[in-house]
Amino acid sequence: MSKVIKNGTVVTADLTYKADVKIDGGRIIEIGPDLSGDEVLDATGCYVMPGGIDPHVHLEMPFMGTYSADDFDSGTRAALAGGTTMVVDFCLPEPGQSLLDALKRWDNKASRAHCDYSFHMAVTWWGEQVFDEMKAVVRNHGINTFKHFMAYKGSLMVNDDEMFASFSRCAELGALPLVHAENGDIVAAMQQKLMDAGNDGPEAHAYSRPAEVEGEATNRAIIIADMAGVPLYVVHTSCEQAHEAIRRARQNGMRVYGEPLIQHLTLDDSEYANKDWDHSARRVMSPPFRDKRHQDSLWAGLSSGSLQVVATDHCAFTTDQKRYGVGDFRKIPNGTGGLEDRLPMLWTFGVATGRITMNEFVAVTSTNIAKILNFYPRKGAILVGADADLVVLDPKASKTISAKIQQSAIDYNVFEGREVTGLPRFTLSRGKVVYADGKILSKEGDGQFVAREPLTAPAKALSTWKELTAPRKVERSGIPASGV
Amino acid sequence: MSKVIKNGTVVTADLTYKADVKIDGGRIIEIGPDLSGDEVLDATGCYVMPGGIDPHVHLEMPFMGTYSADDFDSGTRAALAGGTTMVVDFCLPEPGQSLLDALKRWDNKASRAHCDYSFHMAVTWWGEQVFDEMKAVVRNHGINTFKHFMAYKGSLMVNDDEMFASFSRCAELGALPLVHAENGDIVAAMQQKLMDAGNDGPEAHAYSRPAEVEGEATNRAIIIADMAGVPLYVVHTSCEQAHEAIRRARQNGMRVYGEPLIQHLTLDDSEYANKDWDHSARRVMSPPFRDKRHQDSLWAGLSSGSLQVVATDHCAFTTDQKRYGVGDFRKIPNGTGGLEDRLPMLWTFGVATGRITMNEFVAVTSTNIAKILNFYPRKGAILVGADADLVVLDPKASKTISAKIQQSAIDYNVFEGREVTGLPRFTLSRGKVVYADGKILSKEGDGQFVAREPLTAPAKALSTWKELTAPRKVERSGIPASGV
Amino acid sequence: MSKVIKNGTVVTADLTYKADVKIDGGRIIEIGPDLSGDEVLDATGCYVMPGGIDPHVHLEMPFMGTYSADDFDSGTRAALAGGTTMVVDFCLPEPGQSLLDALKRWDNKASRAHCDYSFHMAVTWWGEQVFDEMKAVVRNHGINTFKHFMAYKGSLMVNDDEMFASFSRCAELGALPLVHAENGDIVAAMQQKLMDAGNDGPEAHAYSRPAEVEGEATNRAIIIADMAGVPLYVVHTSCEQAHEAIRRARQNGMRVYGEPLIQHLTLDDSEYANKDWDHSARRVMSPPFRDKRHQDSLWAGLSSGSLQVVATDHCAFTTDQKRYGVGDFRKIPNGTGGLEDRLPMLWTFGVATGRITMNEFVAVTSTNIAKILNFYPRKGAILVGADADLVVLDPKASKTISAKIQQSAIDYNVFEGREVTGLPRFTLSRGKVVYADGKILSKEGDGQFVAREPLTAPAKALSTWKELTAPRKVERSGIPASGV
Amino acid sequence: MSKVIKNGTVVTADLTYKADVKIDGGRIIEIGPDLSGDEVLDATGCYVMPGGIDPHVHLEMPFMGTYSADDFDSGTRAALAGGTTMVVDFCLPEPGQSLLDALKRWDNKASRAHCDYSFHMAVTWWGEQVFDEMKAVVRNHGINTFKHFMAYKGSLMVNDDEMFASFSRCAELGALPLVHAENGDIVAAMQQKLMDAGNDGPEAHAYSRPAEVEGEATNRAIIIADMAGVPLYVVHTSCEQAHEAIRRARQNGMRVYGEPLIQHLTLDDSEYANKDWDHSARRVMSPPFRDKRHQDSLWAGLSSGSLQVVATDHCAFTTDQKRYGVGDFRKIPNGTGGLEDRLPMLWTFGVATGRITMNEFVAVTSTNIAKILNFYPRKGAILVGADADLVVLDPKASKTISAKIQQSAIDYNVFEGREVTGLPRFTLSRGKVVYADGKILSKEGDGQFVAREPLTAPAKALSTWKELTAPRKVERSGIPASGV
Repeated sequence: MSKVIKNGTVVTADLTYKADVKIDGGRIIEIGPDLSGDEVLDATGCYVMPGGIDPHVHLEMPFMGTYSADDFDSGTRAALAGGTTMVVDFCLPEPGQSLLDALKRWDNKASRAHCDYSFHMAVTWWGEQVFDEMKAVVRNHGINTFKHFMAYKGSLMVNDDEMFASFSRCAELGALPLVHAENGDIVAAMQQKLMDAGNDGPEAHAYSRPAEVEGEATNRAIIIADMAGVPLYVVHTSCEQAHEAIRRARQNGMRVYGEPLIQHLTLDDSEYANKDWDHSARRVMSPPFRDKRHQDSLWAGLSSGSLQVVATDHCAFTTDQKRYGVGDFRKIPNGTGGLEDRLPMLWTFGVATGRITMNEFVAVTSTNIAKILNFYPRKGAILVGADADLVVLDPKASKTISAKIQQSAIDYNVFEGREVTGLPRFTLSRGKVVYADGKILSKEGDGQFVAREPLTAPAKALSTWKELTAPRKVERSGIPASGV
Repeated sequence: MSKVIKNGTVVTADLTYKADVKIDGGRIIEIGPDLSGDEVLDATGCYVMPGGIDPHVHLEMPFMGTYSADDFDSGTRAALAGGTTMVVDFCLPEPGQSLLDALKRWDNKASRAHCDYSFHMAVTWWGEQVFDEMKAVVRNHGINTFKHFMAYKGSLMVNDDEMFASFSRCAELGALPLVHAENGDIVAAMQQKLMDAGNDGPEAHAYSRPAEVEGEATNRAIIIADMAGVPLYVVHTSCEQAHEAIRRARQNGMRVYGEPLIQHLTLDDSEYANKDWDHSARRVMSPPFRDKRHQDSLWAGLSSGSLQVVATDHCAFTTDQKRYGVGDFRKIPNGTGGLEDRLPMLWTFGVATGRITMNEFVAVTSTNIAKILNFYPRKGAILVGADADLVVLDPKASKTISAKIQQSAIDYNVFEGREVTGLPRFTLSRGKVVYADGKILSKEGDGQFVAREPLTAPAKALSTWKELTAPRKVERSGIPASGV
Repeated sequence: MSKVIKNGTVVTADLTYKADVKIDGGRIIEIGPDLSGDEVLDATGCYVMPGGIDPHVHLEMPFMGTYSADDFDSGTRAALAGGTTMVVDFCLPEPGQSLLDALKRWDNKASRAHCDYSFHMAVTWWGEQVFDEMKAVVRNHGINTFKHFMAYKGSLMVNDDEMFASFSRCAELGALPLVHAENGDIVAAMQQKLMDAGNDGPEAHAYSRPAEVEGEATNRAIIIADMAGVPLYVVHTSCEQAHEAIRRARQNGMRVYGEPLIQHLTLDDSEYANKDWDHSARRVMSPPFRDKRHQDSLWAGLSSGSLQVVATDHCAFTTDQKRYGVGDFRKIPNGTGGLEDRLPMLWTFGVATGRITMNEFVAVTSTNIAKILNFYPRKGAILVGADADLVVLDPKASKTISAKIQQSAIDYNVFEGREVTGLPRFTLSRGKVVYADGKILSKEGDGQFVAREPLTAPAKALSTWKELTAPRKVERSGIPASGV
Repeated sequence: MSKVIKNGTVVTADLTYKADVKIDGGRIIEIGPDLSGDEVLDATGCYVMPGGIDPHVHLEMPFMGTYSADDFDSGTRAALAGGTTMVVDFCLPEPGQSLLDALKRWDNKASRAHCDYSFHMAVTWWGEQVFDEMKAVVRNHGINTFKHFMAYKGSLMVNDDEMFASFSRCAELGALPLVHAENGDIVAAMQQKLMDAGNDGPEAHAYSRPAEVEGEATNRAIIIADMAGVPLYVVHTSCEQAHEAIRRARQNGMRVYGEPLIQHLTLDDSEYANKDWDHSARRVMSPPFRDKRHQDSLWAGLSSGSLQVVATDHCAFTTDQKRYGVGDFRKIPNGTGGLEDRLPMLWTFGVATGRITMNEFVAVTSTNIAKILNFYPRKGAILVGADADLVVLDPKASKTISAKIQQSAIDYNVFEGREVTGLPRFTLSRGKVVYADGKILSKEGDGQFVAREPLTAPAKALSTWKELTAPRKVERSGIPASGV
């Protein structure tokens, strides 16, 4: 049963052109004018784009004996409703736990996914077992990315020598290290200081993790990666300080990627001054929202190419869960939603304003991350042979974002009330229409795991360069006898 | 008569994969495994890439009553021998001359071209006629780029208000301004000062145009473009100062492109200290060669994306012509060759060292400029429907660069003696094999003019943003009476 | 008749200590504990500081057939009431006019000054006469600074080759070039564009001279100075862009100074959105006020030392005069007051907030400019032998700034309504109490001209370095015969 | 018995003038023309300057059961012979040791000093005892600076939360934290990697601590200081990366100081490629020498004011001691000499070349550090009442640096063979001629400890600003009940 998307304009990371797209067997089989097929989807007035890929989500994430409210069911429904056809979640071993054991648990959770998915593996502790299992993770489990938390002292955080060891291991394996870059030592100390001063509200969350602390950690991770001879991907780059460190590194020839979140691009820290505790607590995430100056920096990064990806860090907790932190902001679970809103928000505040082009929109929501994570052009492309993960975006369709009409399992939406234009008319996952007329048409378990090979072209190039410029021993004769 | 390139690895700006490429009617008609056709080109062990595009050449350029030695015949032969399948030359009206009249002359010269070509139009003076003719140039002549010289005082140079007027006109027309960025006033004054001090040798050429002077003009052109609300393309970016200005602009959301030359990436200013006058004079071009620090900056720009294109500014004068400037370096004709050497030099010192990837190689030699100049994917792509302008590059083939074996009409080569690996096995122009076995197989006049539409996506986006953020009049009542 | 300032704390650019200060013959003759003299000024609770020096004022400045309202009488009274004991005005020859003739006119105007003064000479045109007279200005008239306007096209503006010629002349004479840095060509073009669009109000003044245009010109002037081998002083640095250019230059070893105005440090561009035309027009000056981000940049420059001087560009026009520009913002006379407010505003928003120290306050209001202009320690110091130009500042005294109580001849004050603390208890000019108890005690003509020698230590050092690193001719034998 | 230095030119950080200087009781009692006294020192043709202050020396430093070869006897003799009249050494408690106990040991060692001295206290571990003793150190022992090592993992290194705790304590006490900024974790890992690869020579020392690693730590220390609300002093800033971090911080309003060493300004990393093991090992210090690009950066920092102090880190080990590290570069004791050479080297390569002025020379060798450490104007000044610590520098005197003629106890000199001009004719310590005619005239124990008060003006200002901008609690009513 073939399918044709007709009368639309294909928009990819580097092309915009009128064409029909024909699909069969879950893949694109033809692109061109006047195609016909068994089923027709009308894309008149619409843009046919690679489906969004969100490389940064936490679904059903364990937290203090409970879980983040959006699991792989509701979370991937939200994704599809928002034009996103693939998510990458983080497998989080507990300290001391086997990476492979943790992975089983994540495999299990993800079996409910409506769309395709993949995993990053987190390195939350260090030891010979981790060193060994990293190889298995890469070679046998199709995971080529390892996440490192520089924050969350006492739980997920790893320190500098652990990072250097892990990054060096990544270099050997052709894997890409990821970092959550905030100085966890300093954050913990500042949290304590704020609590001691009676600052226990959600705004203190933001006070405890200023932009400087993120910039510092970003810079540190970059240097460690440079010393280890491996590229680096910095998640949720939220501020000019971190972005500056990334730009500086790139201008020194380093291979560093930065990922702003749609939240940091469009929401600011005035949210934390809201007199309603719930309102503020719902916006608690790390890093916290910043101000306009930082937003301008991030937007410019997207258009200039110094930042490559827009993600969400979707990790949705209900208001009830947020209230764990009444009286102690450190206990407010960190995270917000965003999966359903990423594309419309970015279209409205990015493309419609002229800050980015449509092609850049596709690049930062889909294509770039597919390349970085090494599953391009299977995903992130409109090419013959590629998976038919597509979004047919209607640039005239608009809505007011509201929790009332969302797929997410939580009771609010941080973008509540925003008018957005540019909504999916259809979303297709491997050729199947999974969202249309405002309805989810997929079912639990439709999604499949996407395995990824190590050693991208930039990683190979970097390793060639590092070898060429490696320290050379000075050959000497007549070395004196040791003084000891 | 179809043709198949078999057994090669296709390398584009964003993909590397094994596939055969089938060609008919001058275009690519199929890409995939196991293709067959009437003629087979064996690409075993080779990379099949979009042919190089050199956006910056001056063939048969008028100079002091004579012409640069490489014309559209020898120049485009050199291009093809080096894997470059398209060149863009500059139409240079004399001050006061009609743009359209000048264009006729260039059309005539280019009729000898072996490969496809296009033109940039230079704005060398300003007036109502220029303003009017710019429209015709864009609408009727397929030229969407206008070059401005900030140097060459007294001949080609335009000043700030002329640039602002012309850039504003470009904004209206959806055209892209280009600049040669050196402060011509200061260069002229420093030239005089050097001559007065008896510094008349070719090294004084370099002394008279230090990096600071290029950085200044680059920065100035960027600001003028920003005020006029138009993107900007900076030709022959040779130094960190200019590159810094470009990066700074991009980080402020401006749309600015930079174009290093292969010469500036690989040759340095020690050439001007050569005791052989001819040796130094042959390297006289503007901007002059810089040092390693600047080279490092340019290379990093290519990998990080802050610089987009590698060109040559090919403008070849014989040693005899160079000797016009004995006793007065200001009379040494500016320019060097490079068309035949650009790809092998960049491959050897860029890809083989790991400074850039193969995909970045394609991007900066072909794809990026095709997008910027708005003829992508007709050129610069390996896609069904694209022109079959291709180079089959053998990464193992090597040679020592020498004037003795070059296509160029001049008697020397600035890269003389360099060992390069990565040479064209075949070059194809619109499907025809025009270079193979070290021989040019094309003939004069095979090349065609490539017309280009205005208004690229970035230009459109920028204009949307500029409109959105345009100054708004403050509405007031009760304005007092004028004091006059 | 000796005089002693008793019980105060002496605060200089690098010291804070309890001491009495004894004065005789217009000079400081002793500093120490328990001094006695014929007259005693009680400084209990106060800081005894070098009197302010404002290096940037325009008193009785000619404008369209009339003059700025504050002349050397009212202007210097305002200075003294605000703790400023010396001003430097700009002698502005008309295009074609002899520098020496213009100077006579300024000598005449300044004969009414209540405090000491000096002049900068403006280079408003170029020619052999200017070249020659510059020497006389330096050698015979005690003026070692030459101002250049890069804006005000059609009247004061000079272009790049004129600047290079003048800067080179400054280098020879050991004089210091000053620049008003805005790209006058672009400003003029944008003014026209705004007028054409019906934007004729005072806010359009700000729109026509954005920060980018100032940054561009600052950068350009710096490069020209670098090429000419001379230090540079940039007046009224108002924005991050200009400041960034200055920092970049300094980090490349160039000798560049920047001078923010107290207005730019404390007022922002929201003033131009005021619905009252008069309110906005009174704030029209060049460069216009900027926003908080720029203010933060300037404040940091003062504490870090990348900006050295706080001035006022005092050039006060009455509301009636401002109204010349009703219907055409280009005719609003440029300038605001500030002489009386500079010290209290900087104390309140700088010292009292902790942005700068008291010593830095003295440095940027007095000592640094005395060094730069080469009359330190005669002025700007509290040392035995120095002129007793002093302000006894009471850090507890406060007032609300208001035009009603000011010395200035104009009918408004741009700081109207600001609460300031830190007011002069006494101001002394060469030992005479010229301001006390809120009253001016000096009389017209008390002020004297301060002559200044050329060739400061930084200028000498720069010239040594430039000589050491000057281009060297490559010595060659066997130079070929000329091709011509 | 009074003393007069006659016929010289007084040069201070901000003044140059002809004057005699009269001394009595160890202090300057008069400055002026034509002074007379009991004893006359002829300074004809010389500059009379504040004696050098070296804030960074390690004399008789404990190391692997032995001590650095220069103790307070030979070390301070070297100082005086080189025009330096005060040194500041580092008291280094062993991990777990009481700060006060360690101080006793340093007091004892320093009792042999020929010139005045002071101490920095190192924080080499953290605990309640350290927290408490820091107060005693400041209040009772006249030490207002605390040094932190970010390198030397396993011995002196402290980690981020210890630094934050200690910096916060400094903020409370008005003390200034100092850092040795290199990432010790990374250095240790890279050392191991180099050893594993057979890179055991002295050049591997440099390979293991590249500029990036220093820049990282510098940036981190700055952010920690910013969070703790305290100024920061970065010792031995050797590279552009660290300098850039300092400049960036200063431009954000932070109070950060940087201290290049004379070695890093004038020696480069080619020393480590020397075929003679001893030659290279003698140059082993941390950070290692860098290249010209870094040197240019440091020089510009001195002239622009972003770096404030030139020191030596004098810690001299004999060749025999260096040979402990044959076969394992990690065991080569870190340190070089420099005390005798700092002033002549800086004069020759700084003042004589025009890179810095004479006044800047005094500022960076003496005055600035006296202000930063808070004993100005007792030292670092030529003012009535100041200690007569003076150097009479003869700008025409020259020598070739050689170990054969040095005061230092070691058998080599890293500046061996350099021609220097600008040598002390006399050095005076509290009025006593301690060096003349090439001879040391002081004796052991002549030096006295200089106690220093906490809370400099910049520290006070910073604390005011931090208070003003401190996080404010959002007052809320109706906070929900906790979810727990």
